[in-house]
Amino acid sequence: MLSPAAFSSSSFSALLRRAPPRTRRLLLGAPERAHSVAAGAASRARGGLPRFHAPSLPSSKGEVIRIQGDEFWHMTRVLRLGINDRVELFDGAGGLAEGFIKKVDKGGSDVELLEDAGLVAPQGIQWHVFAAFGTLKGGRADWLIEKCTELGASSVTPLLTERCHTIAENRVDRLQRLVLAAVKQCQRLHEMSLKPPVQISHLLPVVSESKLAFLASAEAPPLLSVLPKSSSEQNGLLIVGPEGDFTEEEVDALKSVGAAPVGLGPCRLRVETATISLLSALMLWSDAKDQ
Amino acid sequence: MLSPAAFSSSSFSALLRRAPPRTRRLLLGAPERAHSVAAGAASRARGGLPRFHAPSLPSSKGEVIRIQGDEFWHMTRVLRLGINDRVELFDGAGGLAEGFIKKVDKGGSDVELLEDAGLVAPQGIQWHVFAAFGTLKGGRADWLIEKCTELGASSVTPLLTERCHTIAENRVDRLQRLVLAAVKQCQRLHEMSLKPPVQISHLLPVVSESKLAFLASAEAPPLLSVLPKSSSEQNGLLIVGPEGDFTEEEVDALKSVGAAPVGLGPCRLRVETATISLLSALMLWSDAKDQ
Repeated sequence: MLSPAAFSSSSFSALLRRAPPRTRRLLLGAPERAHSVAAGAASRARGGLPRFHAPSLPSSKGEVIRIQGDEFWHMTRVLRLGINDRVELFDGAGGLAEGFIKKVDKGGSDVELLEDAGLVAPQGIQWHVFAAFGTLKGGRADWLIEKCTELGASSVTPLLTERCHTIAENRVDRLQRLVLAAVKQCQRLHEMSLKPPVQISHLLPVVSESKLAFLASAEAPPLLSVLPKSSSEQNGLLIVGPEGDFTEEEVDALKSVGAAPVGLGPCRLRVETATISLLSALMLWSDAKDQ
Repeated sequence: MLSPAAFSSSSFSALLRRAPPRTRRLLLGAPERAHSVAAGAASRARGGLPRFHAPSLPSSKGEVIRIQGDEFWHMTRVLRLGINDRVELFDGAGGLAEGFIKKVDKGGSDVELLEDAGLVAPQGIQWHVFAAFGTLKGGRADWLIEKCTELGASSVTPLLTERCHTIAENRVDRLQRLVLAAVKQCQRLHEMSLKPPVQISHLLPVVSESKLAFLASAEAPPLLSVLPKSSSEQNGLLIVGPEGDFTEEEVDALKSVGAAPVGLGPCRLRVETATISLLSALMLWSDAKDQ
């Protein structure tokens, strides 16, 4: 785990060193953001306030919300927090507020907000992944989703193509659970949205409306040589084909509506590897642009 | 799978469409390289010549080598190749040669070289990964290794730190098998080397000798804003800390010998995610530099 807090305050570092790994992970906040809003939001977490997920976060100072289930267990058993301990609550939709534990009983704990809940806007370019992973086996789709969530993708959409024309319903349910787990683990302030599968024909109009649409393609020039010097776009698309790749017709159709083919280096990449590689580079590119 | 061959020749594409996914994967060659040598080597594979791994590749035209085991099974059962069919052989050390199947019996097939074996030099910057993944669970170390291999890392070394001071021996054996499988799968011409674990103290002199040493660090500026405009270095180092991160002392020591701290975006990344993200971006950067 990359733990910003380990560098932030020596006393907190000392606490970290004494803490068991699991506690340490829970103590660690999200890395500082380039932008002031998020920096403000994240720095509180970096200061070491343990952060918990509260889907229905109240809006005003003084309001009380009940924490139950896993989050309650982490709060009281793992971190051994109790009455009057300060915590941070986030709702996964950008909502963030500091509070304190007012009451603890067997079933849960009541947290009272010490401030009005703030709303942190999404930072930088929002990347939307369209990948044909319906045919992936051996947990490869699982970690494609987990890593897209960790890396900060805004959404992931299973893409249905001629060579990957279906994805099992139960798989989508399973992936949805993985997303929620990963969001909590990496403490994203905004949940990643796992969209319903789309036919490539329905992707085309989306691509034509985007100025930042990249198509993973083995014959194309390297991604970093294709990236624009600057962009005012708020959203970008990543498009990755299935095992056996897109058909020539599908590639031509995507190019014709403006998707830019980009190469991902010398090796032959699996679908999930190409997706993570492309997303990593684009996230780092837009993050650098924000500086 | 990103399959360059799917774009190369319509007849081959037609063949691909008819082939079952597994055969299709085997038919697909490595993407074209920016460099002429490798481009020549890879383009033959892209033309669709099935490529097989032959650890002890003969050097001269006319010599014969026996293919057995998995490769034999793939050659004769999956691809249904037979007498006089042309194939390509690679030894994982840069050796590459075209040949034809001279004889097939129950135990294996004899392939005669149609040309002297060529030696393809490694292309671009060689990236060496030092990651503290000894404590990773749930197959996370497995896929860290598999993805480093697919993405083209030159070597991976388990890093031993204060918070990750050991790695199981049997795990190293298992990872070695994963490397070989991944090398064959992604048809790298050069195998990835999985090094024995090193203490961070032994890494320091290596870092001090390198002009391209990057340390994954949550508080650092984004990687792409730190990368030099150009570099004549042949090797580069990636350094990623353990769960709970490096201690402050370890970070200071690495910085003092010249490791450049780089940030990997807004989210808190797991060890394996940070490694893949950093490697992806650096591979794409050096690949673009080669253009």
